[in-house]
Amino acid sequence: MSDAFKSLENGLIEPLGFRATGISCGIKENGSKDLGLVLAEVPCETAAVYTRNKIAAAPVVFDAARDGNRISAIVVNSGNANCLTGQTGLDNARETAEAAERHLELPAGCVLVASTGVIGRKLPMDRLLFGVEKICRLIRTETDIRNFSQAIMTTDRKPKQSAVEFEMAGKTVRVGAAAKGAGMIKPDMGPARELHATMLVFVTTDAAVGRDLLEEALAEAVENSFNRISVDNDTSTNDSVFLMASGLAGNPPLHRENADFELFKAALTRVCQDIAKMIVKDGEGATKIFQVAVKNAAAHSDAQRIARAIADSYLVKTAVHGQSPNWGRILAALGYSGGRFELDKLTLSINGLVIFEKGDVNRANESRAGTEMLSPEIVITLDLGVGRRDYSVWSSDLTTDYVKINANYLT
Amino acid sequence: MSDAFKSLENGLIEPLGFRATGISCGIKENGSKDLGLVLAEVPCETAAVYTRNKIAAAPVVFDAARDGNRISAIVVNSGNANCLTGQTGLDNARETAEAAERHLELPAGCVLVASTGVIGRKLPMDRLLFGVEKICRLIRTETDIRNFSQAIMTTDRKPKQSAVEFEMAGKTVRVGAAAKGAGMIKPDMGPARELHATMLVFVTTDAAVGRDLLEEALAEAVENSFNRISVDNDTSTNDSVFLMASGLAGNPPLHRENADFELFKAALTRVCQDIAKMIVKDGEGATKIFQVAVKNAAAHSDAQRIARAIADSYLVKTAVHGQSPNWGRILAALGYSGGRFELDKLTLSINGLVIFEKGDVNRANESRAGTEMLSPEIVITLDLGVGRRDYSVWSSDLTTDYVKINANYLT
Repeated sequence: MSDAFKSLENGLIEPLGFRATGISCGIKENGSKDLGLVLAEVPCETAAVYTRNKIAAAPVVFDAARDGNRISAIVVNSGNANCLTGQTGLDNARETAEAAERHLELPAGCVLVASTGVIGRKLPMDRLLFGVEKICRLIRTETDIRNFSQAIMTTDRKPKQSAVEFEMAGKTVRVGAAAKGAGMIKPDMGPARELHATMLVFVTTDAAVGRDLLEEALAEAVENSFNRISVDNDTSTNDSVFLMASGLAGNPPLHRENADFELFKAALTRVCQDIAKMIVKDGEGATKIFQVAVKNAAAHSDAQRIARAIADSYLVKTAVHGQSPNWGRILAALGYSGGRFELDKLTLSINGLVIFEKGDVNRANESRAGTEMLSPEIVITLDLGVGRRDYSVWSSDLTTDYVKINANYLT
Repeated sequence: MSDAFKSLENGLIEPLGFRATGISCGIKENGSKDLGLVLAEVPCETAAVYTRNKIAAAPVVFDAARDGNRISAIVVNSGNANCLTGQTGLDNARETAEAAERHLELPAGCVLVASTGVIGRKLPMDRLLFGVEKICRLIRTETDIRNFSQAIMTTDRKPKQSAVEFEMAGKTVRVGAAAKGAGMIKPDMGPARELHATMLVFVTTDAAVGRDLLEEALAEAVENSFNRISVDNDTSTNDSVFLMASGLAGNPPLHRENADFELFKAALTRVCQDIAKMIVKDGEGATKIFQVAVKNAAAHSDAQRIARAIADSYLVKTAVHGQSPNWGRILAALGYSGGRFELDKLTLSINGLVIFEKGDVNRANESRAGTEMLSPEIVITLDLGVGRRDYSVWSSDLTTDYVKINANYLT
């Protein structure tokens, strides 16, 4: 099915009807860009998922209350998370959205906000509102995915965007995204009504999709992408994924029992997985990434627990950094994961090389695995051989740079 | 009650009836000591708890099968964990114990074994058995707590021992311990019958205590000490705590409903907490330790989840290393912990300075907290104000040295 998708360059501005740009408004002290705007030419059916962290930042609470509204724009700032800022934080989120509505001449209720950066500081509203006015004027003449991507970065080393184009019901349809995220990354997101969000992902599409299906598609795509990555096992207070559908591709409306809906979900999942992997690759201090693929578990929960325990283990993450095929640490994490397994039935492979099977190590392959550990991407496969459930997680290595970044950076 | 206890110098050889020493038998390639022996002059009632990691090392499986036996000696090797070594590993554990029984002229079934070091390598039995013969001869003339402590170390920077003396029922009674542990430290231990243990702790006492009470006392002491520490959140395959009681103090047997039993448990808990804190202080790469004390939670499970989430957070551990009073990271971990709380009701303090209360930060104290973060021991107190349950955990900071040690060391 992947062959049906053609990759495009410009992320979330590829779908028809979307513009985006970014500027500096003075939140970041070093003068880097820190304010971004996504603007749709038409009101968009919009679905979103937010962090389940019970200390949700003000923008998450504000956006969740606009759940169901048709959305025309999203204002994003970096450098300040507007989290743990009490009623002032909520007021500031609302003021920011209302300022954008006024300057963009939009009806009330159609602008969302997003923030990322330091927790526990009030937004500098004078500078921010001045910036909102400026970017609302600028976006009439400028749409630039690079400026937008830079404006939403914090500890990110690289901008992150992905887009695909495909044919659906005789029409050309596009899905695009831009995102930020490198630390405090262990997304655990759900719909607004089970609010328990600093990865920020902005996804757009020109497909015509009703709100229910949009929500369903996003939930499924997020479950199979962002909810399966971890950099540091810390679930952020600001994680949010937004999906806006302009409908300008002109396809006939999608139905649940329709092959086109499957195609749309596949495209959306593809873009989300692309971005999710970029986030892990750009994990704070990361030098390489690894996938933990658990196969043939007795239950989904067993597969999930085991994959996550291994992917999150300090000792596995440092072994990957040290390029050491330390299967003892992998199996130790399996042992405390809480997932069910039988030691004699499992097979552990690294990049396809079997290291441990039938209760014993394969010494010949163990030496060869040393070479495999030099690759920038490593796949650890644990076939439990006791059922039919699979689950996989992408994780980054744990490095001295991760420690340096986080011992000094005020999140 | 603490005043009732007088500290003694020589750890587990302080109680009447115990000897210990250590030698090098060639398991460690650098020639360091790697074989220890604890020997009791009389058969001892013995209780033990082992790791709940389902991949339990061979010595854990072997010892658990001797549960209930009166024990006279424990043979410990470092440098090799004898874990994931299949039937050969079990045979090697048995051969080691049997060799000690033979050389010490003891009846069958009264020797336990313990191992710590690399996972997945067979023990070098020729060298080990030669060593067992040597140390069984040596211990007749030498008892030396320093040699024993060194023989059980792996990545430990310091030997760990603790002992107290107190009066009970007109007799002088002692409890002593020696231990190793610095990495792969998140003990989660229970009795052998719920086997799911590389922290190794050897506790001795000359109190006369029946087996049931000994087990009960150990379970309680471990729950309030070792099960409340974490260095790296990785529960080892070899964690074990042994408690041997010689009865040579001559006290009348303890009863459950007896104040003396409470006194004994307090002494045991004191020694276990001493050792537990030493292990965290000696955590791989650690430069300081911090306690997360959650108070007034609605339920024990809420307090436990919250304390553990904060104590295990990569971002909190790096903030402590960076000496930054980053309360945003602490509350973010609270938010994803799964424990119940109400933001408006909680008070967060660092070394007694209130940083956050009634939903807002205390800016004056926040600046002063910077100085508190310079201390070698930091206490983070989170008073939830919604119930009466408390739980606390000791944790170490996360440093570049931790990463260096574990990216290179083959556990």
